[in-house]
Amino acid sequence: MCEGKPAIVLSVGTELTEGIIQDTHIRFLASELTSLGFTVCRGVEIPDNARQFSDELSRATSEASLVIITGGLGPTTDDLTRETVARAAGVPLEFHAEVWEALQERFPGRKISDTNRKQAEAPRGFALVPNANGTAPGFHGDVRGTLVIALPGPPSELRPMFNQSVIPILAARFATASEKDILWGTALMVPESSLEEALQAARRGEVAWGTRVDEDRIVFSLRGGTGSDRAGSLAALAASLGPVRIREGERRPAQLLTDALLARGVSLVTAESCTGGLVGKYMTDLAGSSRVYWGGYVSYSNAAKTGMVGVSPEILETAGAVSEETVIRLAEGALSRSDAGISIAISGVAGPDGGSADKPVGTVWMAVAVRGGDTMARLFTFSGSRDMIRRRSAVAAMLFAEARLLGRDFLDTRTKW
Amino acid sequence: MCEGKPAIVLSVGTELTEGIIQDTHIRFLASELTSLGFTVCRGVEIPDNARQFSDELSRATSEASLVIITGGLGPTTDDLTRETVARAAGVPLEFHAEVWEALQERFPGRKISDTNRKQAEAPRGFALVPNANGTAPGFHGDVRGTLVIALPGPPSELRPMFNQSVIPILAARFATASEKDILWGTALMVPESSLEEALQAARRGEVAWGTRVDEDRIVFSLRGGTGSDRAGSLAALAASLGPVRIREGERRPAQLLTDALLARGVSLVTAESCTGGLVGKYMTDLAGSSRVYWGGYVSYSNAAKTGMVGVSPEILETAGAVSEETVIRLAEGALSRSDAGISIAISGVAGPDGGSADKPVGTVWMAVAVRGGDTMARLFTFSGSRDMIRRRSAVAAMLFAEARLLGRDFLDTRTKW
Repeated sequence: MCEGKPAIVLSVGTELTEGIIQDTHIRFLASELTSLGFTVCRGVEIPDNARQFSDELSRATSEASLVIITGGLGPTTDDLTRETVARAAGVPLEFHAEVWEALQERFPGRKISDTNRKQAEAPRGFALVPNANGTAPGFHGDVRGTLVIALPGPPSELRPMFNQSVIPILAARFATASEKDILWGTALMVPESSLEEALQAARRGEVAWGTRVDEDRIVFSLRGGTGSDRAGSLAALAASLGPVRIREGERRPAQLLTDALLARGVSLVTAESCTGGLVGKYMTDLAGSSRVYWGGYVSYSNAAKTGMVGVSPEILETAGAVSEETVIRLAEGALSRSDAGISIAISGVAGPDGGSADKPVGTVWMAVAVRGGDTMARLFTFSGSRDMIRRRSAVAAMLFAEARLLGRDFLDTRTKW
Repeated sequence: MCEGKPAIVLSVGTELTEGIIQDTHIRFLASELTSLGFTVCRGVEIPDNARQFSDELSRATSEASLVIITGGLGPTTDDLTRETVARAAGVPLEFHAEVWEALQERFPGRKISDTNRKQAEAPRGFALVPNANGTAPGFHGDVRGTLVIALPGPPSELRPMFNQSVIPILAARFATASEKDILWGTALMVPESSLEEALQAARRGEVAWGTRVDEDRIVFSLRGGTGSDRAGSLAALAASLGPVRIREGERRPAQLLTDALLARGVSLVTAESCTGGLVGKYMTDLAGSSRVYWGGYVSYSNAAKTGMVGVSPEILETAGAVSEETVIRLAEGALSRSDAGISIAISGVAGPDGGSADKPVGTVWMAVAVRGGDTMARLFTFSGSRDMIRRRSAVAAMLFAEARLLGRDFLDTRTKW
């Protein structure tokens, strides 16, 4: 049985229980619902099977006050969510002509197969949840006193629907926060545990939070309390972890650097060793990156550091490839060999081998050079696997360059991340 | 209720139901169990809550003949799997001195806290599942006629344990295929739907298959039938899709190219435009990549193509950045500016903008140059999002270079991927 304000998520699709695709809805909804004050007592992946679906739904509505169903809203006979919810609620399906018209308008000049008419149906008495990014709307209504919300499977449809429509529905029903009562933020270069401690210390009034860990950042939401409680919590968090690490809104490091490059009207050149092209990859993940990214040198071997960017073999010999001297020369060499306005250089020990007592795995030197300004170098110490050290290095490099462009103080880089 | 040879997966941890981490075990186990002939009728994420865990386990053992539990085997009071399974089986916990000794030997010279003793316990009558990569073994045994197998949460521990120990346990109990009766393969540059069709056509005897889609490949397993049925299926698949696309075993494109570079004793230089450093990133994901990866030019802007690699502005003007002429000069320029033995150049339209009638989004030119040999260029047409086009380009580039090194025919590249 469930305790607190109990919620259950059902993720429907045989492609899930056969392991063909990875479910991501349970995690997304669990995170969102937790930060809205719900206790998620179960996330269940079930196949497109009428009996199992009915059993799960019946069990879920008997235990939770909120059940969210994802998937099963497509046009095929495998898609069982409408029928299953209608049966559980004891109502027939109802055809929504306006949905059918909108669906036909999405494909002007094309004949829409009649099997799609199903997508214009919903259990009688249930309200529709609009879907701006797909053909099938969701719906919400009561099954034996439990609020049941059905949403489509594609994440690009579900996530905006959750933010735009489901949060207000939950706010109306459960007195949770609505979207305008949520303050979103991003934590960068902060371990999850440190963010949690800092959030606790920064908390004002009745503010609660939820976090989502991405590859290059942690997104957090502040909910509850008054608007000034939330703003105060965010400000206190930024004061404790620093304005480089804490940003308002959902931001990506590559986007932050891109914005700073656009604001200064300069382009970037990279010289990457241990990250092997990852900063270039992150910068060019963004559409339109050609406006700000000139190019990069992946100076992986020592010969490449010399041949591509002109680091002298003597420096590589005496100071080593992972050293302040080397990254300064990489940054200045890359800048002078380009039309860019700023350069980043990275050289470190990503592991798992190659560490020494002097330069253990996780030791990463970085330098940023600008035209007509001082070159700055920093020593970082990262923890984790090879993959984590490389990702953390790339994120730190982008923020280091952003700080230099904006004339901001950078971080205490001795702190382990 | 469950049908067929029913299996249920329980993934335990409050960090899952609060959305802090993404479960990946349900998908992994669902895929493996499906290809072993089980019907996975439910995958459930539950919190570290004794009552909910007991309820779920009791329901699962009443419905399925196999229940796999992941997580909850750590040393803290939150870790409830041992107690919960023992209670369901009606047996006490039993201390395994040899596990406790092995655990202490893992940390020589360090005092292991007594709270860790818990990790040496298992329900009485249950057999241990060895864990070569962590402190806590798993265990397996019967609960009311259902086989219950408990495995630790970290994927780096669970996956080898599944392959090495769980498959034989299932083979002994359910007459499923054992690991030696499974032929693993990798499909590269093949859309999932085409692989499925080709697998159907290539099938010999009673062979069944399962697939897992990764970022850069699809791993598949062939099970059932005789050894020669499986070998025949793989051979037929390779004959239909080509030996570049179908490999025996689990292989990564970057590893295949690395192996070919090692075999030929040469290193690689890259010249990447639309992929922005992704090939470099993939090559240097592998530990020890400095033996084979010299470095790379991320010649993203036209100025970088000229400045870094010496592509003449006239060629960029007349043929365009995405053209056979440009990639040939990128490949030859990168090679001549390095000590590497082979180069790859990539220039394409990754989108979402920048496409034209002549060169739509997904148009990608690649060239491979070697010392003292002909430079080869190919035109590829990729579909999908910016991210997919970039990943597909990087994979194709690595396989193109591998084929050149091994003197193999490459692919019909007009086929859309």
